[in-house]
Amino acid sequence: MQFSSDNWAGAHKAISAALASRAGGFVGAYGSSELDRTVSEQFNTVFGRKVAVCFVGTGTAANALAMTACNLAGGMVFAHSHSHVIEDECGAVEHFTGGARLHGVGGGFGKMDPDLLEKAISKYASGFVHGGRPMAVTITQASEAGTVYSLAEIAVISAICRKHRLPLHMDGARFANALVSLGASAAQMTVEAGVDLVSFGGTKNGCWCAEALVVLDPKRFADLPYIQKRAAQLFSKTRFIASQFDAYFKDGLWLELAAHANAMAARLAGHTHASPHMRLAWQPQANEVFVVMKERMANSLLAKGAAFYPWTVPDNYLGQITAGETLNRFVTSFATTKAEVDAFGKLTA
Amino acid sequence: MQFSSDNWAGAHKAISAALASRAGGFVGAYGSSELDRTVSEQFNTVFGRKVAVCFVGTGTAANALAMTACNLAGGMVFAHSHSHVIEDECGAVEHFTGGARLHGVGGGFGKMDPDLLEKAISKYASGFVHGGRPMAVTITQASEAGTVYSLAEIAVISAICRKHRLPLHMDGARFANALVSLGASAAQMTVEAGVDLVSFGGTKNGCWCAEALVVLDPKRFADLPYIQKRAAQLFSKTRFIASQFDAYFKDGLWLELAAHANAMAARLAGHTHASPHMRLAWQPQANEVFVVMKERMANSLLAKGAAFYPWTVPDNYLGQITAGETLNRFVTSFATTKAEVDAFGKLTA
Amino acid sequence: MQFSSDNWAGAHKAISAALASRAGGFVGAYGSSELDRTVSEQFNTVFGRKVAVCFVGTGTAANALAMTACNLAGGMVFAHSHSHVIEDECGAVEHFTGGARLHGVGGGFGKMDPDLLEKAISKYASGFVHGGRPMAVTITQASEAGTVYSLAEIAVISAICRKHRLPLHMDGARFANALVSLGASAAQMTVEAGVDLVSFGGTKNGCWCAEALVVLDPKRFADLPYIQKRAAQLFSKTRFIASQFDAYFKDGLWLELAAHANAMAARLAGHTHASPHMRLAWQPQANEVFVVMKERMANSLLAKGAAFYPWTVPDNYLGQITAGETLNRFVTSFATTKAEVDAFGKLTA
Amino acid sequence: MQFSSDNWAGAHKAISAALASRAGGFVGAYGSSELDRTVSEQFNTVFGRKVAVCFVGTGTAANALAMTACNLAGGMVFAHSHSHVIEDECGAVEHFTGGARLHGVGGGFGKMDPDLLEKAISKYASGFVHGGRPMAVTITQASEAGTVYSLAEIAVISAICRKHRLPLHMDGARFANALVSLGASAAQMTVEAGVDLVSFGGTKNGCWCAEALVVLDPKRFADLPYIQKRAAQLFSKTRFIASQFDAYFKDGLWLELAAHANAMAARLAGHTHASPHMRLAWQPQANEVFVVMKERMANSLLAKGAAFYPWTVPDNYLGQITAGETLNRFVTSFATTKAEVDAFGKLTA
Repeated sequence: MQFSSDNWAGAHKAISAALASRAGGFVGAYGSSELDRTVSEQFNTVFGRKVAVCFVGTGTAANALAMTACNLAGGMVFAHSHSHVIEDECGAVEHFTGGARLHGVGGGFGKMDPDLLEKAISKYASGFVHGGRPMAVTITQASEAGTVYSLAEIAVISAICRKHRLPLHMDGARFANALVSLGASAAQMTVEAGVDLVSFGGTKNGCWCAEALVVLDPKRFADLPYIQKRAAQLFSKTRFIASQFDAYFKDGLWLELAAHANAMAARLAGHTHASPHMRLAWQPQANEVFVVMKERMANSLLAKGAAFYPWTVPDNYLGQITAGETLNRFVTSFATTKAEVDAFGKLTA
Repeated sequence: MQFSSDNWAGAHKAISAALASRAGGFVGAYGSSELDRTVSEQFNTVFGRKVAVCFVGTGTAANALAMTACNLAGGMVFAHSHSHVIEDECGAVEHFTGGARLHGVGGGFGKMDPDLLEKAISKYASGFVHGGRPMAVTITQASEAGTVYSLAEIAVISAICRKHRLPLHMDGARFANALVSLGASAAQMTVEAGVDLVSFGGTKNGCWCAEALVVLDPKRFADLPYIQKRAAQLFSKTRFIASQFDAYFKDGLWLELAAHANAMAARLAGHTHASPHMRLAWQPQANEVFVVMKERMANSLLAKGAAFYPWTVPDNYLGQITAGETLNRFVTSFATTKAEVDAFGKLTA
Repeated sequence: MQFSSDNWAGAHKAISAALASRAGGFVGAYGSSELDRTVSEQFNTVFGRKVAVCFVGTGTAANALAMTACNLAGGMVFAHSHSHVIEDECGAVEHFTGGARLHGVGGGFGKMDPDLLEKAISKYASGFVHGGRPMAVTITQASEAGTVYSLAEIAVISAICRKHRLPLHMDGARFANALVSLGASAAQMTVEAGVDLVSFGGTKNGCWCAEALVVLDPKRFADLPYIQKRAAQLFSKTRFIASQFDAYFKDGLWLELAAHANAMAARLAGHTHASPHMRLAWQPQANEVFVVMKERMANSLLAKGAAFYPWTVPDNYLGQITAGETLNRFVTSFATTKAEVDAFGKLTA
Repeated sequence: MQFSSDNWAGAHKAISAALASRAGGFVGAYGSSELDRTVSEQFNTVFGRKVAVCFVGTGTAANALAMTACNLAGGMVFAHSHSHVIEDECGAVEHFTGGARLHGVGGGFGKMDPDLLEKAISKYASGFVHGGRPMAVTITQASEAGTVYSLAEIAVISAICRKHRLPLHMDGARFANALVSLGASAAQMTVEAGVDLVSFGGTKNGCWCAEALVVLDPKRFADLPYIQKRAAQLFSKTRFIASQFDAYFKDGLWLELAAHANAMAARLAGHTHASPHMRLAWQPQANEVFVVMKERMANSLLAKGAAFYPWTVPDNYLGQITAGETLNRFVTSFATTKAEVDAFGKLTA
């Protein structure tokens, strides 16, 4: 009953096998091999247009490099107040950009409120040099709260970005989970919705270590190869990443794995809903489930072998937790089994 | 006849298999698993003392993080003029440190001249604030010229460092090759010789992607976990690195692979020496061989399928190349076969 | 009726004359002259102990250098949400530190709420590397709201800093105004209250351009000379700053000028209080007065030649402004005259 | 007999008086006053076209901001090996740019050799991402060796810059001295010669503290206001700088002061030439004179009250100094008197 995080899983066996199958022979280093080109073209197919791709090692790297590509002196990046870049990356964006500021924007259930975004950007859009200036907007899809921006919601945010001439970045650490949740194509969720840069995560969804920064219009952000190399993110044996993506995309494995993880989350949410001892905090839309229960109950579940984390209650939910209750996060992944979920269900009955 | 670089090879099958064997199950992320602990202890064994280890993704990352750990305002890092940090890392050290300077120090055959080092450090050691100040020394073992610092040579450099109270870093992208070349232990080549920080490379010697920054006295540089995370170098599924090192160290595989690469280099040097069409530029001590030949000859070999690179002639060798001749670098690896080397030998006969 | 800002004033005639009197002759550059030493000793007298002093050109520089001296990888600086470092320095702290984060802390009337500070620090004090870590606290004295921390209030904040082993910085752009408001000595307001670093501002209080970063325990932050020089803040003809401070301190001129500015603010507040057309937003304690009036009234005053700025209503005051009303800031300085203040008073009667 | 440096002088009395005359009254802060505009227009007149100007506090700031405006990831700035940015600014360029590298280029008598420059740029102009890439060229006019680039020499360097699409920056800490030496106009020495950015120094030539970064085509480098503010170089009471420049330009004072300093250097060179105890190292072209003499002689002169510094012998001059001899630098300024120079002449006779 392991629901700590999707990065507690290892690698899907097809991905692991593909990597092993590429161990022999000599090929060009630093992204110059045939396989690198092939996989880059797979990204074109996924996004429905020619894109530029940098393979990097961590989601934090993809996010920080994206922001570096957008960098401005005195620049501000607008991100959800509880986003990963703000809460979980130890200041990487600030460090790589040499001091850009992350400006938290509120919004319920992990998603930025467009009115608050507009207000925040407008505050700094006047050319008043002392206050700094807007430089980019970043949204997380699926969000840290397990919710998913609809295509329309992304379009609203990208319209604000276009109005202020700001690039829109999508932190897609759980890109595939959002995609299958929406039943949309990657092109619809990004290019057509007005997104400019994507941190495309494979690691949480069955890869060992495969992240890509995708530039949707490759004529822009042409500095990225230098930014990537200088950031120590140009791997020598890039086939170790490329071969993971090769297997990831093959026969739609990536969507299948994400669909499974989402289904397991829904199943877990079902058990939760049915339980007299707990309640769903809000409806999960991807592979994270947030559950309210008495602290006593949480401790009992942990003692019986269920693994999950207590979670900070977001501002918009504060009033809905009573004394003695806690909010808890459960994450499912490609490796989560029905048996595990149902075993957990039994404990909660 | 692939001698382009040791990073054109893939992964040794034992390492690849070990990685695949760890694909299943759930374990703690971000370095918190039992395997992470086990492999950290293997590093203790290798270095003959308790050390601190950060797993990172590239050699450039290891070097840049090491220098960040030593960082001083106005600081200067003394490195060989043709070192990897100066010539091949796109300013990563300067970027991560927020502007430390790499100061090139001369010396024949890829190794720093201790007198020039002493002179260079002394120039900036006076407290004259305008000129900046010494902050660290970094040496490359084995060097970019395929040579190896003897234990005594390292000790001379570390004595200069101690005199000026500077940390000594070793860029060990080819650490194992140097070790077997010297027939020394890792402790002798580092701790006992006065080295403080090691970029311990596994990638060039049979791993997919396994580099470690090793702090020999773990009471020092205690900021590294934050430096690492902020640098986007804390991987979530660290077992993908740890399991490579686990196999790398098992039964001395790492030394065996390096010994093989070095032997292949020696064999290739033998063919070169015997050839009437070329000559060894200098004696190889690790897995890189530098060969002087007519450009015509080089082109002919390339046309016949031998892969290697022409190389910039270092200053100390300029007088020894005549018109029409070129310097060429051949790199061997764990994956180089006798058959390939001898096929090359035939072409040169 | 010029109340736009205290930096719209020029230089006090004694300071200007002192500067002119030093124009001739040759003296050591870069802080090496006898005058530099003399003025440094005057700082010792002011603070009641041996301190270290860097003369810099702007308050932003003093603040940014102070934070650079405290810098940690992944570090967070806790500052009032509406502080100058957050709202008016274009990301200078973030830039000079290579990416430290400014974390806004709430609190009414421009002063940090100690409970919110403790809560904010505690959130990041756990060693959870992903979230970053506390690095310093900075308070503004007098605050941006024209209020002044009492000695007891500073002591409460410094106790929190000591508990978490964080340096406490005071942005003293209006240091003298706070001092005369409290009737305290500089030693009481800093050393004895637990402050570690002070941005000591002279510019707003009658100097042309004279700011100093003061380290209260000179054994700490020993890197500052390099940090200062690298930051382009080591002036060659330092006597142009030193001579201003020399006159500033002479016969207590600095306190006299600040007392005058504060008195003018109090007088203006008196007129405001007496007026049927406006009300004091809160009681001024230094040289800034915040006044609520109808927007119509503000426009009328501006049209009649009074110069002041509308101001963003702080969160804690939102409920006290009704529709049609605006909050306005009036700043007095050493150069403000009774006549001007009374002329303004007449307009408001 | 004070020849230590031109920044040991104070301020010219006209400049000091102009500053004092502006002490009263209220004017807009942060560059918004009428005087700021007037002085900006004076710069247009000086350069013979509309330019953009940032007033900054130090030459190091002007240089570092110029390079920040040109900044590229992995970027390299080509500067003379003994230039001020490399030897005397404590890594400011590297720091402000977040890690750009200064690449030393050789050349006799303080001036870059165009062939070496072309060679150095070409080495990095290939798009090989590992090696970094060219980003700017900076020359010092007058040079640190007291020599002056002719208009033709600047044009040769700017042609190289244009070929490689690199901006050309001129460090004009001694801009006026070079100008009167050449008998050229500022437009000829910059705009017409292909220079893009100028660090225009007033401090060494009679100002207290007046430096300006001048952008010759104001449509370029439009980020500078943010770069300047973020760098803590936007002064509040900018009239303290503007009024210095106002007096500096009035009736050609700046050229007169520089002409005087140069004439004093020529006079000192004449004495040196006539002396049996010393010789001119090379012909001075601005206000610095380099003299070879026996160390014994230098010590005797110092003992008799002459102030000057021994200087590091540049590589191209090494062969011309014999054992027991030293190279010494003498700097004259607007404040140097004939009497002083002749008193020194007497000592050398």
